[in-house]
Amino acid sequence: MIIVMKQGYKESELDEVMNAVVGAGGQNHVIRGVKRTVVAVSGEETVLRTIPFETFEGVESATAILKPYKLASLEGHDERSRFELAPGVVVGGPEIVLMAGPCSVECPETMREIARGIKAAGCKVLRGGAFKPRTSPYDFQGLGEEGLKILSEVGKEHGLATITEVMDTRDVELIERYADIFQIGARNMQNFSLLKEVGRTRKPVVVKRGLAATIKEWIMCGEYILAMGNPRVLLCERGIRSFDPMTRNLFDAAAVAVAKSETHLPVIVDPSHAGGSSKWVEPISRAAVAIGADALLIEAHPHPEKATSDGAQTVRLEHLDEIINGLRPTAAD
Amino acid sequence: MIIVMKQGYKESELDEVMNAVVGAGGQNHVIRGVKRTVVAVSGEETVLRTIPFETFEGVESATAILKPYKLASLEGHDERSRFELAPGVVVGGPEIVLMAGPCSVECPETMREIARGIKAAGCKVLRGGAFKPRTSPYDFQGLGEEGLKILSEVGKEHGLATITEVMDTRDVELIERYADIFQIGARNMQNFSLLKEVGRTRKPVVVKRGLAATIKEWIMCGEYILAMGNPRVLLCERGIRSFDPMTRNLFDAAAVAVAKSETHLPVIVDPSHAGGSSKWVEPISRAAVAIGADALLIEAHPHPEKATSDGAQTVRLEHLDEIINGLRPTAAD
Amino acid sequence: MIIVMKQGYKESELDEVMNAVVGAGGQNHVIRGVKRTVVAVSGEETVLRTIPFETFEGVESATAILKPYKLASLEGHDERSRFELAPGVVVGGPEIVLMAGPCSVECPETMREIARGIKAAGCKVLRGGAFKPRTSPYDFQGLGEEGLKILSEVGKEHGLATITEVMDTRDVELIERYADIFQIGARNMQNFSLLKEVGRTRKPVVVKRGLAATIKEWIMCGEYILAMGNPRVLLCERGIRSFDPMTRNLFDAAAVAVAKSETHLPVIVDPSHAGGSSKWVEPISRAAVAIGADALLIEAHPHPEKATSDGAQTVRLEHLDEIINGLRPTAAD
Amino acid sequence: MIIVMKQGYKESELDEVMNAVVGAGGQNHVIRGVKRTVVAVSGEETVLRTIPFETFEGVESATAILKPYKLASLEGHDERSRFELAPGVVVGGPEIVLMAGPCSVECPETMREIARGIKAAGCKVLRGGAFKPRTSPYDFQGLGEEGLKILSEVGKEHGLATITEVMDTRDVELIERYADIFQIGARNMQNFSLLKEVGRTRKPVVVKRGLAATIKEWIMCGEYILAMGNPRVLLCERGIRSFDPMTRNLFDAAAVAVAKSETHLPVIVDPSHAGGSSKWVEPISRAAVAIGADALLIEAHPHPEKATSDGAQTVRLEHLDEIINGLRPTAAD
Repeated sequence: MIIVMKQGYKESELDEVMNAVVGAGGQNHVIRGVKRTVVAVSGEETVLRTIPFETFEGVESATAILKPYKLASLEGHDERSRFELAPGVVVGGPEIVLMAGPCSVECPETMREIARGIKAAGCKVLRGGAFKPRTSPYDFQGLGEEGLKILSEVGKEHGLATITEVMDTRDVELIERYADIFQIGARNMQNFSLLKEVGRTRKPVVVKRGLAATIKEWIMCGEYILAMGNPRVLLCERGIRSFDPMTRNLFDAAAVAVAKSETHLPVIVDPSHAGGSSKWVEPISRAAVAIGADALLIEAHPHPEKATSDGAQTVRLEHLDEIINGLRPTAAD
Repeated sequence: MIIVMKQGYKESELDEVMNAVVGAGGQNHVIRGVKRTVVAVSGEETVLRTIPFETFEGVESATAILKPYKLASLEGHDERSRFELAPGVVVGGPEIVLMAGPCSVECPETMREIARGIKAAGCKVLRGGAFKPRTSPYDFQGLGEEGLKILSEVGKEHGLATITEVMDTRDVELIERYADIFQIGARNMQNFSLLKEVGRTRKPVVVKRGLAATIKEWIMCGEYILAMGNPRVLLCERGIRSFDPMTRNLFDAAAVAVAKSETHLPVIVDPSHAGGSSKWVEPISRAAVAIGADALLIEAHPHPEKATSDGAQTVRLEHLDEIINGLRPTAAD
Repeated sequence: MIIVMKQGYKESELDEVMNAVVGAGGQNHVIRGVKRTVVAVSGEETVLRTIPFETFEGVESATAILKPYKLASLEGHDERSRFELAPGVVVGGPEIVLMAGPCSVECPETMREIARGIKAAGCKVLRGGAFKPRTSPYDFQGLGEEGLKILSEVGKEHGLATITEVMDTRDVELIERYADIFQIGARNMQNFSLLKEVGRTRKPVVVKRGLAATIKEWIMCGEYILAMGNPRVLLCERGIRSFDPMTRNLFDAAAVAVAKSETHLPVIVDPSHAGGSSKWVEPISRAAVAIGADALLIEAHPHPEKATSDGAQTVRLEHLDEIINGLRPTAAD
Repeated sequence: MIIVMKQGYKESELDEVMNAVVGAGGQNHVIRGVKRTVVAVSGEETVLRTIPFETFEGVESATAILKPYKLASLEGHDERSRFELAPGVVVGGPEIVLMAGPCSVECPETMREIARGIKAAGCKVLRGGAFKPRTSPYDFQGLGEEGLKILSEVGKEHGLATITEVMDTRDVELIERYADIFQIGARNMQNFSLLKEVGRTRKPVVVKRGLAATIKEWIMCGEYILAMGNPRVLLCERGIRSFDPMTRNLFDAAAVAVAKSETHLPVIVDPSHAGGSSKWVEPISRAAVAIGADALLIEAHPHPEKATSDGAQTVRLEHLDEIINGLRPTAAD
């Protein structure tokens, strides 16, 4: 913690700061420069950070220097996390895990067609939403438990693991019964009650980055789950909000590299939400793999124009096959 | 709905579009310009919007022209909403309702000191969080039900209405028993399960704008609550995320004017989160009132440096008094 | 300057850092904490900042603690700047200076109608662009020197000072002959050649904030002009780029308060560009004055629908009169 | 152009709109829907766009449907642009052109060391700034003409083409004599006087994307140069401003794909500014090539810690060699 005193501060104000530091078990190192006096504080920063030094009289700024995450941090870990999403499906290793499926779970026939298609294209995980976060209360809200049953059955029939979004703490137990992987949506990234609840389960959790979440905040959401005892956390970049209407969101490619340099967790990319249009899924997927993504999560459907939601950013099954074939050279390295 | 066809589209592609429009009960009006062909569609836009026309072959863009909110919209309403937050506390009228209190509920003695202070300064509502959304799992998470009891008791003793944040669908019933007003935090703005649940209660709800929510998305969250039958919704601007580190968030003053021109709902401002520092609370409050805010929600504490959370943006009680006095000339008009 | 070493750095790496500090005339203060070693450096920070410590082996981060502006800074100044924009027109004092006029200079008859209108409404400065920065090369680019002549003549006839935008270093001398005040547009905020050139003149300069400029960068542009010897600099907030299409730009009200707390320079607001629509000029003007703006710069025209540019954000002359009348109570305080 | 009338508009207001359309040579197509009346306008949109329909009474919104760029647009072009940057250096073809060098031109010895290093690594263009845009007036501003001479001589000695930034219309002629390629910096992207001036030369121009420029605005800056008769324009993505301090700018990978789908111009990437740190140059370069960049512009130096500017984002020469080797598999496809 570095505390900078204002020009013209009073000695009594400096004393107040130093006493608070000592009270929190820290040590003060005062440096009196020509223009500014600085207090470099050593000690347990998680305790020191709870003191609002910026409200103290005479203080100009107070800055923490340690990272707030411990369990997620790469520092102190011997190697990157590598774990099973479901029996035989390993993420964090040399293979890029491919996950695909419709935005919302649809009828069993359509789900079977999708499962066959994505499996043939090389995917190992089937996605599909049963509880849908929709911007409008008047839009389709998902099939609920019926959707979970279809997803689970079709996944089993085709030897695919399954991933689905959880939106409500009350649904965690239900979803845990049916699906292999939890997905926390971007809009719920900082729904801390929900993070704690999935942290109590023993299923892997994909944490999508919030629309305007800093990389640090995103990692802290993973930390919530780790802190509850669930070690299988994946971070998912899916585009952040920006000012250009040409893409629905702004794919932050470098965030993949930054998150992998900060944490030992697998980092995956959702190119469908990142670009918001089926035509950007292929280029974004290529960039994602080139920059180190451990998995891709793609919206795919036999007839996107008939999908019950997110049709515009959903690729046709035959297009999915081409996209995945095109990734091979990029991923090879 | 306006559908623009690509240059060089095929007639069969235009037919597909027009058939889909007719299938959804709409009418097509085709305009063949020199460079582009446009289909202007009339009909029920809530139905038409569910068709992903942008995925159709030959289509360049498809744009909805109606607003997606019906109940919140000012259009079709004779007048702005004005309602009681608690007996005798009316929002949406000529009086600017002042709400203040600590970030987190503290011990009864401190809460009583705060209640006396804010009441003397002219406030009618006491705020205080019992369940706290914290970026870090290692930070103080609130007193829970014990905090709700203290808030409720101290509010009653001093004739102040109370407002507190709800973070989890499972806590809605509990909080409804203790507090007068629900607050949906910025991080839960699009926690749609939670919006539906508070929409089923009969207590007013303050919906804070998400960190990167468009004004339209923010209004749609109010629409969720209205659609469940709860008419007492307030929108709260609390700063959005931006690139300048000089303020914690970026206070979007114009959003108050825009939201009031789009909806009939009261719009309030939280200057504490908007600026993120006690020194910006006064100027932001002045601008908020000048641009039409119906209420202010301010973090105040007798000793911000000892507050259990958010100390840096919390004002001292005597400063609160000055701020409120300074608002009179601005608000008079 | 605070330099944080990586976990597991080598002593030889720390030595390199310390030698570089000493080489730049600084002193090292090494604090060895439990988890991190920190070097607090005192000395001439303008010199130290030119060393890229972050590229040194073993260094995690290097952070400057002093502000990069000296001449613009409020620190070390006894009072806020107050100066004449033209004889008798003082900015930075109790009076809010009102500047208005068309986006582009038009024919003499229209300019006279505007001059009469804005003068009657209480304005003291006439604005009008002769050289126009246009997003498209196919849009009207301004009348050039002919426009400057009209602006100057009409200003003199009506006893109004004049302000106009300079876009090119080659035009500085010409514009200085005709206008009283230079305006640097948002798109040229960091056109450093141009800043230096207007810094060599003896006319006041309004520096509009760039679309995505931090407050610090914006102040540094004022510093460029001050450093060339021109003391009459005004900072103009005109909205920054954000993600919400409901307003053309995002009016950063708090930036007015922040810039006034950081510098001694007058800070003004352009509500026309900030909101991008004539309907937002009034509410933004009210908020601007409430939060401390020293002047307003408003686009006004007798017939906005016939203006040669920016019609959508231009107010009618009669509306300008109402807006200014409405400001009185807010400004009174 | 699509004009939407307000609910409850008057017929006389609709007449005004329609008359203005006819006056501009357009045709009106009125569609009276259940909730809204829409006027779909056909005709010359460059003329129609100059009428501020949004200021007309009774009008809710007016939206252009054609793209504002003609010369840059891919539409109507048979193929993508491919041209020589200097004799034998072709951009826009299968080869990814590599450009590297220091931020600022340094002494001849250092420049020769750099030229040898980048040539050995496979680069064909030497970069180096003689006129430097610096945030602070107190920072090194470049060597000026002396720097141009060094750059030119060293380039010729080593058979490398040269690129340097132009900041001032008065320097265009001078720089044209010395360098092969002009660079317009991000801060000058919308310095329209400068764009016109380089548009009059016959040397290729790299247009860097502004910090908060939309892709459309960026393309329009290329259009300015094309409209002056200079056909050799390259667009350069170099990161945009965002809220996360972990990277200096936010690399907008998808912008490369979008710009290539909208225009026929080559699109290049500057990974040094995009990430702002030498450690992100490699991953961003890989993503850039994977998503279709036609060239890379990298800051490289034998001793970044001694570079006169931008050391933190400059890679060592040996690191440059590794980065380029690492690109081969990605680029192969």
